[in-house]
Amino acid sequence: MRHAGGTGELAVLLWQRALDPQAGAWSLPGGLLHEDEDLTTSARRQLAEKVDVQEVSHLEQLSVFSDPRRVPGPRTIASTFLGLVPLPADPQLPPDTAWHPVSALPEMAFDHGTVVRHARTRLAAKLSYTNIAFGLAPDEFSMSTLREIYCAALGYQVDATNLQRVLGRRGVLTPTGNTAPSGRTGGRPAALYRFTDSTLRVTDEFAALRPPS
Amino acid sequence: MRHAGGTGELAVLLWQRALDPQAGAWSLPGGLLHEDEDLTTSARRQLAEKVDVQEVSHLEQLSVFSDPRRVPGPRTIASTFLGLVPLPADPQLPPDTAWHPVSALPEMAFDHGTVVRHARTRLAAKLSYTNIAFGLAPDEFSMSTLREIYCAALGYQVDATNLQRVLGRRGVLTPTGNTAPSGRTGGRPAALYRFTDSTLRVTDEFAALRPPS
Repeated sequence: MRHAGGTGELAVLLWQRALDPQAGAWSLPGGLLHEDEDLTTSARRQLAEKVDVQEVSHLEQLSVFSDPRRVPGPRTIASTFLGLVPLPADPQLPPDTAWHPVSALPEMAFDHGTVVRHARTRLAAKLSYTNIAFGLAPDEFSMSTLREIYCAALGYQVDATNLQRVLGRRGVLTPTGNTAPSGRTGGRPAALYRFTDSTLRVTDEFAALRPPS
Repeated sequence: MRHAGGTGELAVLLWQRALDPQAGAWSLPGGLLHEDEDLTTSARRQLAEKVDVQEVSHLEQLSVFSDPRRVPGPRTIASTFLGLVPLPADPQLPPDTAWHPVSALPEMAFDHGTVVRHARTRLAAKLSYTNIAFGLAPDEFSMSTLREIYCAALGYQVDATNLQRVLGRRGVLTPTGNTAPSGRTGGRPAALYRFTDSTLRVTDEFAALRPPS
């Protein structure tokens, strides 16, 4: 998933099935696990080979979907992943592949719509107790850009001042010392920030339950 | 996993392998997925059939372990689960099966030690932003019992007053109106509580990011 620059929405990368079953429906990128690779290696390989996405800032396992009747034919168990592509990366895509707003999915193949909704729910939950937004944000950003990313990923409006206050208190953001050029309306140039960490951590630990330091 | 009443430790249920490979080493309960069941159904079946555990208060998927060399012989992918057994349940166990303190595991088969440490880390993390302790606690408990459960699961001491304050503020606990009989030291009878919910929920949402109500 990524924050789509143009529409400002959370978007998911899908490819359109050319053949039956379910020709024309849209699928998540994926494929069979090779004998000599583990699932994470396989997920990265599928993204690189099938949809030419190399730049994945965060990849984590989601649920395994194992209903015996989830796809026609031989039983197939889907071990799913949430992968994030940061702004402003905009990988070249093969012609049968496109980013779709998560809030307006096309006709989805098999249980892939359920998988996308599950991924979005996980992402929204993790935005509230981890620094996972590092995976969607550019290296350096204004609070107004970060707010747009949070709003899109959560699916509702959040206040930039509150966001800055909470993330600041948790040490999630570090000011870079740079400022963005003034926008069309003039005014003070916006301070730029980066994420303090670029790997996932729980930022909202239960204060009363923190380990002794 | 459960909170072992006697030793007051977080304990994991293991069975000792009678045959090679790795005869004598201890394994997590598990087995092969049947053609007609999904993974969650299978996990509950294995617990009931193999170690006779019926009373599981919470069951959630953990990681999938998929290193091609994780076990000898044909490739086997392990989809792992965290299952919690509440106090005071103490299921009858088959003779080759026993609860072991998570902090002092015996010689473990294959990568099962890694799986247990992973499960414990997940449980400790979830204690800080969810109500997952409902899965370990009895129906009704004093704050002092709940504190013991948290200390054992986290592996370090926490303060009962802080615990009560934080869980109270989050609406996680509900007073039952009952009190525990006074202990040997006399003093005021302890108030008893229950968990408000008996299914998992994130209790520590990012206040600034809450959906509009």
